[in-house]
Amino acid sequence: MAGLRVCSALVTGANRGIGLGIVRQLLQMSNPPKWVYATCRNPKGERAQELQHLASKHPSLVIIPLEVTDSSSIQAAAARVGEHLKDSGLNLLLNNAGIAKLNSLDTETLEDMSQVYATNTIGPLLVSQAFLPLLKKAALGSPGSELSCSKAAIINISSYGGSIGSPSGWDLMQAVSYRCSKAALNMLTKCQSLGYREHSILCAALHPGWVQTDMGSSAGHTPPLTVDMSVQGMLNVLSTLSEKDTGTFLDWEGKVVLW
Amino acid sequence: MAGLRVCSALVTGANRGIGLGIVRQLLQMSNPPKWVYATCRNPKGERAQELQHLASKHPSLVIIPLEVTDSSSIQAAAARVGEHLKDSGLNLLLNNAGIAKLNSLDTETLEDMSQVYATNTIGPLLVSQAFLPLLKKAALGSPGSELSCSKAAIINISSYGGSIGSPSGWDLMQAVSYRCSKAALNMLTKCQSLGYREHSILCAALHPGWVQTDMGSSAGHTPPLTVDMSVQGMLNVLSTLSEKDTGTFLDWEGKVVLW
Repeated sequence: MAGLRVCSALVTGANRGIGLGIVRQLLQMSNPPKWVYATCRNPKGERAQELQHLASKHPSLVIIPLEVTDSSSIQAAAARVGEHLKDSGLNLLLNNAGIAKLNSLDTETLEDMSQVYATNTIGPLLVSQAFLPLLKKAALGSPGSELSCSKAAIINISSYGGSIGSPSGWDLMQAVSYRCSKAALNMLTKCQSLGYREHSILCAALHPGWVQTDMGSSAGHTPPLTVDMSVQGMLNVLSTLSEKDTGTFLDWEGKVVLW
Repeated sequence: MAGLRVCSALVTGANRGIGLGIVRQLLQMSNPPKWVYATCRNPKGERAQELQHLASKHPSLVIIPLEVTDSSSIQAAAARVGEHLKDSGLNLLLNNAGIAKLNSLDTETLEDMSQVYATNTIGPLLVSQAFLPLLKKAALGSPGSELSCSKAAIINISSYGGSIGSPSGWDLMQAVSYRCSKAALNMLTKCQSLGYREHSILCAALHPGWVQTDMGSSAGHTPPLTVDMSVQGMLNVLSTLSEKDTGTFLDWEGKVVLW
């Protein structure tokens, strides 16, 4: 991870699972970010206690309330981070917040399709729009022209469940709403890579592996990867990303995943 | 088109553009379907006059009101078609209804993302669920085990604008909401092909080409294809689809489009 030297990073959905794991490992790096912004829906709630405990030990960790399906909440979070960063920009935005519903193809509903898409696809779009000025500022303030996560990047946490070419795990979990939302998130990532290239912002989608989280275990199976293994792999991949990787879909080991 | 011999077909969004073109050519086939169901939001409206005119000349054309984002409207349409077909099933469901918004990456909104997804992705899911019993009935009533559009099929009208691997026309039209909805529709098609294989229902996504419709011309350009050319190509492709094509994404000439 020698290559990943970000001054500031923001992680959504950071109170549990992979999001919390990313925050933890960012803080433990030999060259940790000056500021790590961890967002979640309800920082004062019971499900954010671990994150609060972490913040009590790390003054560089700032917890920000953020509901990714609520435009005014997103605007307020971006304003708070902007004020806190003062003249600096934000180097790394990790759109990690996501939900899943275990419906089958036959039981999928309008409501679940809408809700999962709002959180998993529209959320990352709106959050990226709101933080774009801070990402641009980071890119402008960084030396060199080569894209990298140390300069300015949007990383969308996707899933190989959203791979249309190789839709993994159909027999375990149909979850059409989740798969459609992640395929759409991959398309958003491609659009962001095309649109934000001129601002020197790298954009990529990452598959974290099948991880021992509430979501990963929700179909009653035991996933092979611990949160630590997945996050270590992903941060290592982030440290290696460059020009050629913008607009790609990679797994936690850096292997290309089919769209 | 010698191979396409369907007893019944249903086309959504059939009052204009490609949908109307499909209905027209189905009626003109040398072996036309016994019944063609053409659905649109408002059959009595001004924008359905051409369809009404067509129905006045073709007794095999049945116009059904259908709003693809409204579950109760979908249920009512499926019930009406079921009653009309009596003991027969529905061979071919063409999910054609779709909308587009010309936003850029920067101006895309929560509302437009939701609305486009509801029509272009959730609609085809719900419509397919509602017509599934009729598609199953058609498959059971058809000889042989080989999948085909003549037996039972769901065809989702997608777009190469939804190809993540080759996102065509970015410089002409960013339309992130449209692209994301079509990538998700492609994923839905893949899921349907996996889930409905056991019922002998073929599922595929089709790109109609860049066609001279209101939508195709909406960015101020003149598309190369007439509706007739596109529809003729697509119906020809449908006549050739078999086992190997379920779960694929093809264009109006039968060429594979990248996911």
